[in-house]
Amino acid sequence: MFRNKYDNDVTIWSPQGRLYQVEYAMEAVKQGMVTVGIKSQDYAVLVALCRAEGHTNDIQRKIMPIDSHLGMSIAGLTADAKQVCQYLRTECMSYRHTYEAAYPVSRLVTNLGNKMQPTTQRYDRRPYGVGMLIAGYDLKPHIYQVMPSANVMNCKAMAIGARSQSSRTYLERHLDSFLYSSKDEIICHGIQALRSSLGNDCGENIKITIALVGKEQTFMTLSDEECIKYLNMAQTLAKPDVQ
Amino acid sequence: MFRNKYDNDVTIWSPQGRLYQVEYAMEAVKQGMVTVGIKSQDYAVLVALCRAEGHTNDIQRKIMPIDSHLGMSIAGLTADAKQVCQYLRTECMSYRHTYEAAYPVSRLVTNLGNKMQPTTQRYDRRPYGVGMLIAGYDLKPHIYQVMPSANVMNCKAMAIGARSQSSRTYLERHLDSFLYSSKDEIICHGIQALRSSLGNDCGENIKITIALVGKEQTFMTLSDEECIKYLNMAQTLAKPDVQ
Amino acid sequence: MFRNKYDNDVTIWSPQGRLYQVEYAMEAVKQGMVTVGIKSQDYAVLVALCRAEGHTNDIQRKIMPIDSHLGMSIAGLTADAKQVCQYLRTECMSYRHTYEAAYPVSRLVTNLGNKMQPTTQRYDRRPYGVGMLIAGYDLKPHIYQVMPSANVMNCKAMAIGARSQSSRTYLERHLDSFLYSSKDEIICHGIQALRSSLGNDCGENIKITIALVGKEQTFMTLSDEECIKYLNMAQTLAKPDVQ
Amino acid sequence: MFRNKYDNDVTIWSPQGRLYQVEYAMEAVKQGMVTVGIKSQDYAVLVALCRAEGHTNDIQRKIMPIDSHLGMSIAGLTADAKQVCQYLRTECMSYRHTYEAAYPVSRLVTNLGNKMQPTTQRYDRRPYGVGMLIAGYDLKPHIYQVMPSANVMNCKAMAIGARSQSSRTYLERHLDSFLYSSKDEIICHGIQALRSSLGNDCGENIKITIALVGKEQTFMTLSDEECIKYLNMAQTLAKPDVQ
Amino acid sequence: MFRNKYDNDVTIWSPQGRLYQVEYAMEAVKQGMVTVGIKSQDYAVLVALCRAEGHTNDIQRKIMPIDSHLGMSIAGLTADAKQVCQYLRTECMSYRHTYEAAYPVSRLVTNLGNKMQPTTQRYDRRPYGVGMLIAGYDLKPHIYQVMPSANVMNCKAMAIGARSQSSRTYLERHLDSFLYSSKDEIICHGIQALRSSLGNDCGENIKITIALVGKEQTFMTLSDEECIKYLNMAQTLAKPDVQ
Amino acid sequence: MFRNKYDNDVTIWSPQGRLYQVEYAMEAVKQGMVTVGIKSQDYAVLVALCRAEGHTNDIQRKIMPIDSHLGMSIAGLTADAKQVCQYLRTECMSYRHTYEAAYPVSRLVTNLGNKMQPTTQRYDRRPYGVGMLIAGYDLKPHIYQVMPSANVMNCKAMAIGARSQSSRTYLERHLDSFLYSSKDEIICHGIQALRSSLGNDCGENIKITIALVGKEQTFMTLSDEECIKYLNMAQTLAKPDVQ
Amino acid sequence: MFRNKYDNDVTIWSPQGRLYQVEYAMEAVKQGMVTVGIKSQDYAVLVALCRAEGHTNDIQRKIMPIDSHLGMSIAGLTADAKQVCQYLRTECMSYRHTYEAAYPVSRLVTNLGNKMQPTTQRYDRRPYGVGMLIAGYDLKPHIYQVMPSANVMNCKAMAIGARSQSSRTYLERHLDSFLYSSKDEIICHGIQALRSSLGNDCGENIKITIALVGKEQTFMTLSDEECIKYLNMAQTLAKPDVQ
Repeated sequence: MFRNKYDNDVTIWSPQGRLYQVEYAMEAVKQGMVTVGIKSQDYAVLVALCRAEGHTNDIQRKIMPIDSHLGMSIAGLTADAKQVCQYLRTECMSYRHTYEAAYPVSRLVTNLGNKMQPTTQRYDRRPYGVGMLIAGYDLKPHIYQVMPSANVMNCKAMAIGARSQSSRTYLERHLDSFLYSSKDEIICHGIQALRSSLGNDCGENIKITIALVGKEQTFMTLSDEECIKYLNMAQTLAKPDVQ
Repeated sequence: MFRNKYDNDVTIWSPQGRLYQVEYAMEAVKQGMVTVGIKSQDYAVLVALCRAEGHTNDIQRKIMPIDSHLGMSIAGLTADAKQVCQYLRTECMSYRHTYEAAYPVSRLVTNLGNKMQPTTQRYDRRPYGVGMLIAGYDLKPHIYQVMPSANVMNCKAMAIGARSQSSRTYLERHLDSFLYSSKDEIICHGIQALRSSLGNDCGENIKITIALVGKEQTFMTLSDEECIKYLNMAQTLAKPDVQ
Repeated sequence: MFRNKYDNDVTIWSPQGRLYQVEYAMEAVKQGMVTVGIKSQDYAVLVALCRAEGHTNDIQRKIMPIDSHLGMSIAGLTADAKQVCQYLRTECMSYRHTYEAAYPVSRLVTNLGNKMQPTTQRYDRRPYGVGMLIAGYDLKPHIYQVMPSANVMNCKAMAIGARSQSSRTYLERHLDSFLYSSKDEIICHGIQALRSSLGNDCGENIKITIALVGKEQTFMTLSDEECIKYLNMAQTLAKPDVQ
Repeated sequence: MFRNKYDNDVTIWSPQGRLYQVEYAMEAVKQGMVTVGIKSQDYAVLVALCRAEGHTNDIQRKIMPIDSHLGMSIAGLTADAKQVCQYLRTECMSYRHTYEAAYPVSRLVTNLGNKMQPTTQRYDRRPYGVGMLIAGYDLKPHIYQVMPSANVMNCKAMAIGARSQSSRTYLERHLDSFLYSSKDEIICHGIQALRSSLGNDCGENIKITIALVGKEQTFMTLSDEECIKYLNMAQTLAKPDVQ
Repeated sequence: MFRNKYDNDVTIWSPQGRLYQVEYAMEAVKQGMVTVGIKSQDYAVLVALCRAEGHTNDIQRKIMPIDSHLGMSIAGLTADAKQVCQYLRTECMSYRHTYEAAYPVSRLVTNLGNKMQPTTQRYDRRPYGVGMLIAGYDLKPHIYQVMPSANVMNCKAMAIGARSQSSRTYLERHLDSFLYSSKDEIICHGIQALRSSLGNDCGENIKITIALVGKEQTFMTLSDEECIKYLNMAQTLAKPDVQ
Repeated sequence: MFRNKYDNDVTIWSPQGRLYQVEYAMEAVKQGMVTVGIKSQDYAVLVALCRAEGHTNDIQRKIMPIDSHLGMSIAGLTADAKQVCQYLRTECMSYRHTYEAAYPVSRLVTNLGNKMQPTTQRYDRRPYGVGMLIAGYDLKPHIYQVMPSANVMNCKAMAIGARSQSSRTYLERHLDSFLYSSKDEIICHGIQALRSSLGNDCGENIKITIALVGKEQTFMTLSDEECIKYLNMAQTLAKPDVQ
Repeated sequence: MFRNKYDNDVTIWSPQGRLYQVEYAMEAVKQGMVTVGIKSQDYAVLVALCRAEGHTNDIQRKIMPIDSHLGMSIAGLTADAKQVCQYLRTECMSYRHTYEAAYPVSRLVTNLGNKMQPTTQRYDRRPYGVGMLIAGYDLKPHIYQVMPSANVMNCKAMAIGARSQSSRTYLERHLDSFLYSSKDEIICHGIQALRSSLGNDCGENIKITIALVGKEQTFMTLSDEECIKYLNMAQTLAKPDVQ
């Protein structure tokens, strides 16, 4: 009831100190397809579920490369994500041009948060309707979560999107093993975390995109063949886990 | 009921994380006449239904040439489409002037999406009320779908507009045959896909516009004679299909 | 009912994908006095009904000359039409100054449409309340219809304004004869089309304005004497038509 | 009822294609005191009724001189009229400075209309609440009527303001005699037309202002003595008219 | 009832052509303390009632000097009046600087009116809540009344503020005697006019401010001693008037 | 009831000519702690009550120094006061820089009033929620009261804030003795006036701040020791007053 | 009830002189995790509780370093805090660049308050939803509290956030001992104050962040090891306190 009165403008506080429009924008993230990010000592990996229904268009990939040391996966409105993506690409390009170096990941995401914050405070825009997992590597690998609230969090592993709670549960359960995982293992963990959110549909025929960045490894989206290879590998690894 | 409260401003999120005004603008596309885009290995083809009733005015063609390597067909508000068209033409012209080359198709549509996104996020405008199929050729043929949500999708084949679901069903059924189709075959597929959306009216007397672009073929809208030729050709090809 | 909710702002889409404010502005055109435009091989002709009641003021002429190769007739708000007229005159003048040539008609009306489109998309203005028939001649004669929706249509013949449906019916019935009509014949057709919308009032005493432009004929509004001459001529021609 | 919904913003069209706020502003003109304008072959004359009640302030004259060839009388909000007056004076002054000539009357009033039109189309202003009769002389005398709708009309004779319908009836009845009237006759016609709107109060003690401009006559407001002279003259002339 | 709908925005016309917000601002003037202005052949005099209750602050004088030939008295919001006052002072100073002369009074008040008019036409401001009597002298003395409606009136004598109708009645009754009154007489008339609005309180102990400007007399506010002198003088003169 | 309709926007006049939002802002002043200002022939003194409850933070002093000849005490929103304070400091600094002199007090407060007035007239801000007593010295001491209405008043003595009516009553009762009071006496009067508003709490343990400026005395806030000294002194002086 | 009407815009005063939107923003602070700041003669210390639930992301630290002499801890919206943080960092950096010195703490927080005040007075933004404790050292240590109301307070010790009243009670009880506390003691006091707000959860396993700045000590966030050391130390010290 009270809710009705304070939820139609991003610049209105509710008597309980909540910003309902920001919370509603978070719902748009929860309706996007699940995506997972994990980092080991040397790699940061993104795994994203792709829309499989409808074959006339190319799969709308949920992972977007930004710079050679940086990329992101998204859950929510693609058009909003692309706007953010363009901003990040321009920033990285201009940084490279000025300093002849890669934009430090933590500083970039801090600036992104500061750029997004006004959409939660000014009356003439709506908050972005997209959540992002940003995987980057400068001196070490990074996974950052950026949300419509303009909140930026440094993560060891994270999952966002529809039913992602199950993925986060998987990630927490295996958190200790990530740091010293090999490249293959960390990718398989990402796949398994994603699968946790699929419930009974957890068959072999899920369609996913995988990207990684790391030590001596520029940001790269894996080919379909490699994806299938890792799907099988994860399947094999997962079996003992089920026992 | 809830719907009533959150659907009168493009900057308002519903509690379920939806933007109703964007969804309503998508309805305007669904009320436009159906148009189809398909690409083969060498060609990208657009086929559009034209308003036939009322003879005093020229047929309002739904296909708009943009540059020698690029054109689009539309479903929805023509005036909105022309605004977009002018933007694309200006961009292409200015690119040619600067780089003495054709604007790469994928980059152009990405920029178009980013230009359209603010109409879904800022309070002082409405989302565009038009869907577009953009056919282009740079190193290979492209079909892109651009929607009021500012979503841009790379497609093998696509149909938008009134009752276009039937056309999309046709396209999905024949998807595998498009890649290695000849120019004539791919045009006939476009015509047949369009016809699927016409239901029982699927007679010989439909009025359509056809345009194509491809390898050693600048963007060209076919003459009425050629259209009739292809309509007959498609008719002949279609027969076995019905059997 | 739903209608009530979505019709008070030009930037609001209805759930059915309609823009009611644009549709309401079209109503203003339907309340203007009827005007007709026709083109033959060599001429573009405008015929407009004039307000006859009230003699203290000059007849408010509904035909406005724009440039030596261009003019327009209007239905709807005169003040809005004059604003548009001024824009077109300035454009033509500046074009002549730059290129020492007449502004190509089709390009000019395209730009006009693009100028009018924002009034249908931005919150701080209302759509124009006037419909226009633009008659021009560059390499051949043109009749363009421009509406509050910012829609621009290339026409062979067109009528807009109150009860103009009857005029359009007349035009469609005689459409085939226009192309090779002489100057006198095409003017008479315009008069007869206009008369069709007057119903039983279709007497000899209607007050009209006639303008034409064409091959070796700059845009010219006919004198009252010539108007009467053509009214009589049309009357004579019309008789057999009635039989 | 419907009326209630569409009449509180100048940028809102009613479903019938009306702009109620513009119509309401016209009401402000109807509440102003009546003023009459007439032109003969050589003269344009303005006659305006003045507020007589309250003697502590000078009579608020309803006729405003603009330039040596131009002046206007008003009905409605004086403050709005003065704003318009200042615009016209500045325009005339600047024209004289640039071209060393008088601003052609018809061009000036066209520009005035175009300046006033946005107040009927933009959301942040209200339409002007004043009607104006502009009397000018360049190659011949002119009477223009300018209304809150931004409509500009070239008139032979016109009356606006409270109960001005009676004055317009007088003007229409005598319309044919104006063109070849002498200066004295045309002024007397103006006075008689004004008197028509006063009903039974049509005594000798009405308070009026008279101004004229014409051939070899710069715009001039007559002295009180001359006014009285013409009032008497009109009285005498009027007598036979009553018989 | 209708009133309720059209009175909350200065840019909204009521169906009767009224601007309620402007009328409400006039109410603020009616609640200010009464002030009177009169002019004779040589002098313009302002008399204003001052707030007497509360002794801790200086009397808030209602008469503000503007330039050596100009001053004003106010009724309504003091803060609004000071804003206007500052504008007038700046204008006068800048005029003196440019032309080395006093700003002609009538031109200055015309400009003031034009500056105030937009507050009655634009949506983002409210009309000023103050009425002003401006007394000036250039070639002759002037009294101007300026109201929230931006109306400017040239007056022989005027009173505004609470119960000022009685003062205006006094002024009208003695209007003929003002022109040839001496300085003392005209001041006494001002005092008597003011007293008329005080009803039974019309004792000797009223607190007033008096200012005058005229031939060889720069604008000057009288000292308290002189005020008392004139109060007594007016008292004496008034007696016979009562008889 | 009517009140409800006209009190939610600072640019709306009520039918009675009141600005409710300005009146509501005045309420914020009435809820601030009481503060008193008095001037004698040579000194201007400010006395302010300080928040005593809660010891973890420094006492939020209600007296703010502005320049060496100027300071102010406040009642209402501190954040608003600081904004005003910053404006005054900047003005004084810039004046000193330009003229190498202290900003004349009366001119400064006039400008402050003019700067605050737009917050009571423009729609995009709220009126300031703070009242100020400004104590300054140029050729003589000054006490000015500035309120949310942008009203500026020159005072002999003044009190604002919660229950300040009692203080004002004290000040009026002793008004005659202030002019020739010594520095000590005038400070004691300030303390006693403040105490009048404290009712029965009028014990010895009230916490106050005292500041003064005057002849050969730059603006100075007294130390806690001196405050206690004067509190005791005032106590002693007050005793006979009670008798 | 009244509350409902005046609480949906930051520029609206309630009839009682309150700004509800500012008060609601204060609620957001009360929902943040508790944080404590204390200063001794030589040190300013910040202690903040960290979100412990959810291990996949790094702990979102509530203490942000600003410059070598300055840092802050926050309660409320992190994204808002980061925006403020960026402002402070930029200010400090630019100050260092200009003056080659540290920005004086009190002047910096005054400017911060003035920057935040407009969010409580202008219609197009919402007040910040974060409270901050700023610890700095220039000539001596400082703790400042900055709230959404833009209020800045100089504190000896302060606690903000959920259930912080208990912490403030602890701080007031031990206020006298802070000034001459050693570094270790003052940190332990901070921990104990924080614990007071945790109620029965006051176990050994709370997760906190500690930062300090002081004499010959740049702003430094303690390592996890040191935190544990101090937690134990505080535990030991606290025991006697409980007895």
